[in-house]
Amino acid sequence: MPAPKEFLEYVDNKADLFIQRLSDAVAIKSVSSDPQCRSEVIKMSNWIKDQFSAVGVDTELRDLGKQNLGGEELPLPPAVLGRLGNDPTKKTVLVYGHFDVQPANLSDGWGTEPFKLVIKENGQLVGRGSSDDKGPVLGWLNILQYHHECKKELPVNFRCCFEGMEESGSEGLDDLVKRESQSGGWFDSVDCVCISDNYWLNTRTPAITYGLRGLAYFKLMVSGPARDLHSGVFGRMVHEPMTDLVILMSKLVDVNGHILVPGVDEMVSAADVEERKMYEGLDYSIADVDSAVGASTTLSSDIVEVLMGRMRMPSLSLHGIEGAFYGTGAKTVIPAKVIGKFSIRLVPPQTPDNVEPLVRKYIESEFAKLGSKNTCVLEPEHGGKPWVGDINHWNYEAAKAATRAVYGREPDMTREGGSIPVTLTFAESLGVNVLLLPMGRGDDGAHSTNEKLDRSNFIEGTKLLGTYLYEIAALKK
Amino acid sequence: MPAPKEFLEYVDNKADLFIQRLSDAVAIKSVSSDPQCRSEVIKMSNWIKDQFSAVGVDTELRDLGKQNLGGEELPLPPAVLGRLGNDPTKKTVLVYGHFDVQPANLSDGWGTEPFKLVIKENGQLVGRGSSDDKGPVLGWLNILQYHHECKKELPVNFRCCFEGMEESGSEGLDDLVKRESQSGGWFDSVDCVCISDNYWLNTRTPAITYGLRGLAYFKLMVSGPARDLHSGVFGRMVHEPMTDLVILMSKLVDVNGHILVPGVDEMVSAADVEERKMYEGLDYSIADVDSAVGASTTLSSDIVEVLMGRMRMPSLSLHGIEGAFYGTGAKTVIPAKVIGKFSIRLVPPQTPDNVEPLVRKYIESEFAKLGSKNTCVLEPEHGGKPWVGDINHWNYEAAKAATRAVYGREPDMTREGGSIPVTLTFAESLGVNVLLLPMGRGDDGAHSTNEKLDRSNFIEGTKLLGTYLYEIAALKK
Repeated sequence: MPAPKEFLEYVDNKADLFIQRLSDAVAIKSVSSDPQCRSEVIKMSNWIKDQFSAVGVDTELRDLGKQNLGGEELPLPPAVLGRLGNDPTKKTVLVYGHFDVQPANLSDGWGTEPFKLVIKENGQLVGRGSSDDKGPVLGWLNILQYHHECKKELPVNFRCCFEGMEESGSEGLDDLVKRESQSGGWFDSVDCVCISDNYWLNTRTPAITYGLRGLAYFKLMVSGPARDLHSGVFGRMVHEPMTDLVILMSKLVDVNGHILVPGVDEMVSAADVEERKMYEGLDYSIADVDSAVGASTTLSSDIVEVLMGRMRMPSLSLHGIEGAFYGTGAKTVIPAKVIGKFSIRLVPPQTPDNVEPLVRKYIESEFAKLGSKNTCVLEPEHGGKPWVGDINHWNYEAAKAATRAVYGREPDMTREGGSIPVTLTFAESLGVNVLLLPMGRGDDGAHSTNEKLDRSNFIEGTKLLGTYLYEIAALKK
Repeated sequence: MPAPKEFLEYVDNKADLFIQRLSDAVAIKSVSSDPQCRSEVIKMSNWIKDQFSAVGVDTELRDLGKQNLGGEELPLPPAVLGRLGNDPTKKTVLVYGHFDVQPANLSDGWGTEPFKLVIKENGQLVGRGSSDDKGPVLGWLNILQYHHECKKELPVNFRCCFEGMEESGSEGLDDLVKRESQSGGWFDSVDCVCISDNYWLNTRTPAITYGLRGLAYFKLMVSGPARDLHSGVFGRMVHEPMTDLVILMSKLVDVNGHILVPGVDEMVSAADVEERKMYEGLDYSIADVDSAVGASTTLSSDIVEVLMGRMRMPSLSLHGIEGAFYGTGAKTVIPAKVIGKFSIRLVPPQTPDNVEPLVRKYIESEFAKLGSKNTCVLEPEHGGKPWVGDINHWNYEAAKAATRAVYGREPDMTREGGSIPVTLTFAESLGVNVLLLPMGRGDDGAHSTNEKLDRSNFIEGTKLLGTYLYEIAALKK
C-alpha cells in the first residue's frame, strides 16, 4: 500500500502554505536555554497544540513542573501529547519531535535575521529551527492536514509527543514518557516509534539512522594553592596544578584517537566482513569529511575506518580547561585550581556506569605515579547510554520502502556519532522498535549560524514521513 | 656619616602629614591599563611634578607619545624627571619609581574602598598603590622635604625618574632612559641607581635585592578544522588540535618543576658551597612558603632548594589555553584552534634569544613525532633578560649600612623570581650599579585585593632611603 497519489499531489499543491506555516513557527523565539525567551517557548507549546487540534488530533498540554535556571525558578514549557485513531486492526505509531531551538543572534554571523524565515533563490529556507526541529514537526502536521481536509482515514493509529526542552537536556520528559508508557497511559499499545530529528550523512542521499553513541562526561580537577600565584614569585617553588592536569590529560587519548584508558577501546569488538560492507556502501568520502571539517585532517585515508570511528567506535575528546588563563595576550599566572573537561562517546556494550570506574582507576593510578602534593578529583558529569536499533524490524522495512518510493533510491543506513537521549528513553520505556528518519541534509547547520532546510527536503520529507505510515500499514496488514 | 638625628626626628614628627599625603596620592585613580582612567594617570604625573618642585627639585614632564589601546589612541602619561644638586665632589644617585597602579574595584573583594586610604588599628595603610609604588615614591619626597624645609644640603646629587606606565609594560620609557643616559642627558654622570619597587622576602626582615629573573613567553598554536566541531559527530574522525597541544604541553615541564626542553636547565651551573650558604642565611622557612601559597605543596622540604628554585633557577609555567572551552558546566566541543600559553623565567646566562631556539627545536621535533595532520606554530611573545647586580659594589655596602642603622639588623640579600624590566634598561644604558631597596613587606598584596603598606614600613622606610643617601656619601667621601 504505497501512499495515495492524492496525498502526494496535495503536498505539492500546498507547498507554499506549508512554508508559510514554517515561517510562522520560526518567528516564535522558542530558545529553551534563555530565560528571557521562556514565554516564547510556552507560546510555542500552545501554538503546536492548536495546530494539531485544528487537523483533528486529540491533544493535551502536559505540565512538566519548574526549572531552576541560575537561581531563577522558571516554568518548564508543557509537552504536547496527541492521538488520533484507535483501531485495533492498525499499528500504532508514536512520533517525537521538539519545538524549542538553539540560541541565535544576528551578531553571531547570520546573514539574515535568524527568526525570520528567508526563502533563498536556491530553495534554502534559512532560519533558526527550520531544520532542527520545527520543519520535521510540521512535516507530520502537513500529513495530518491532508487526511483531515480530504476526510481520509490515517493508515495507522497516530500518537505524538512534542517537547520544548530538547536543546536544554529534555528536562522533565523522561518521567512523562515512562508514565505514559504504562498500561492505560497515552503511549499504551504503541507498536513502534519514529523520531525525525537528525540529518542525512551528506547532501545527496536520504538516510535512516539505527544507532547513536552514548556519552560519559568528566571533570578532572587538580588544585593546590589557595589562590592564583604569580609565576615569577612562585615558579619552581610549588607543584603547579596546570602541570599535573596537562600531564594527566595527555594520557587519556593518543594523537590517532586511540583511547588510552585501559579497557575502554577493548570493550568494543571489531567489525566483521558483513558490517564493514555496510560502511563501504555508504555514500560518503574523505572529500565529504574534509568539506565538513574545512581541512584535510582525517585520522585515516580509508573512509570506512573514518566512518567506523564516528559510528561504531568510542571517542575521547579534550574540550578545555576551566580556571586557567584563556584570554588573548599573555598572563603570567599559576592557576590555583584547574578543571579539565573531557568526554567519551560510548557504543554498546559501553555505558557511563561501566566506563566510569575504568577512567577513575586509571586517573587515580596515573596521578599517584606523579608524586604531586596537589589534590586531584574526578567528577563524572551527565551521561547517557548508547543505542542501536534492530534494522531487520518491519519499522525499518517500512522506512526503507518509503525512501525508495519517494526518492527512488536506497537510503544510507547510518549510526550517529552524537546522542539523542530521548531515543533510549522511548526504546527502554516502551520496549518497541525505534528508528530515526531524518528530513534535513548533512549541511543544514543545525546548531550553527544560517541554519537552513532545503525546500525539497521539507516537501519531499513530508511525503516520506506520510509514505512511511502507509508502508507500515502495508507491511503489517 | 650616618643620617643626622634631626632628619630621623623630622620623619617621626611629620609621620601623620606624610600619611595624609599618601592618602592624597592613593585617591587619584591612576590605573594605567584602563582607558577610562588615563586622565587620572596624567593628573598624577602633574601632581608628582608639583610635589617634587615644591621641595626644591628641578622637574620636567616628558611626553612619551601615544598608545594604541584596543583601537583607541590615548596619550601616554608623561614621565617626571627631577634633579637636585650638581656638586662634582658628590656621588650622583638616580632613583626610579612609578605612580600608576593596578586596577581595583570594591567588588573584587576589597574590605574597603580601594582608592581611599584607610588607616587600620594594626597600623596598616590599606589602599591601591600604598605599597606599589606610591609609598616608596613619596618616601623620596619625604626626604627631600626635610632637606628643603630645614635648609640642609643633600649628601648626594639627586636624580629621579618616575613613570606612569609601569603596570602596563613601561611603554615609552626605554627610549627615554636610553636618550637621557647619553652624554648631556638628564642622567649623564649618574653613579648608581636605586629602585624601590619590590618587597621583603617575609614580614620581618628588611631585604636588599640583587637579582631578577628574565622572561621568555610563548604561544603554541595547534589548528586543524576550519571551525569548532561537535565531538559527537567528529570525535575519532579527525586529528583534534587539543589532543596534540596537550601532549606537547605535557612534555615541557615535569611535575617537580624540571624543564624538559633539552639544554635549558643545563645552562645554569649548580650553586657552590658559598652561594648555598647565602640561601641558608635567609630568614624564610617552608612554613612561610606554605603561608604565602595557602597550601603545603613545595617541591622540596628543603627551604634552600625551594628558595633557589625561585631565585637562581629557571622555571616553566603553563598558564592556560586560548580557544578551548573554559566555562563552568559541560560543552562537547572539539576546538578548531587552540593556543597554549607558557613562559620560562630566565636566569643568567639565559636570555630570550638563546632559549627560544631550544624551545623551537624541541617543539618542532616533538610535534613531528606525533604524526598529526594538524598545523603547529610556536610564537615567542614579549620577553626580558634576567639581571644580577654586583653585591660587592659600594652601592650595596651603603644600603646594607643603612639597613643596619635603621633596623638594627642584617638585610636578607635576595633575588626576585619575577621581572622588573626597567632595572635592566638602567643597568645597560648607564653601565652603573643598580640595586633594589624595598620599602614594603612580603604580604603587602601589591597586585591583589586589600593592598597595604605598614605604617612602620612607610616611616622607617623613609628613614632607610634617606640614610642610604648619607651612607653613600660616607663610603665615597
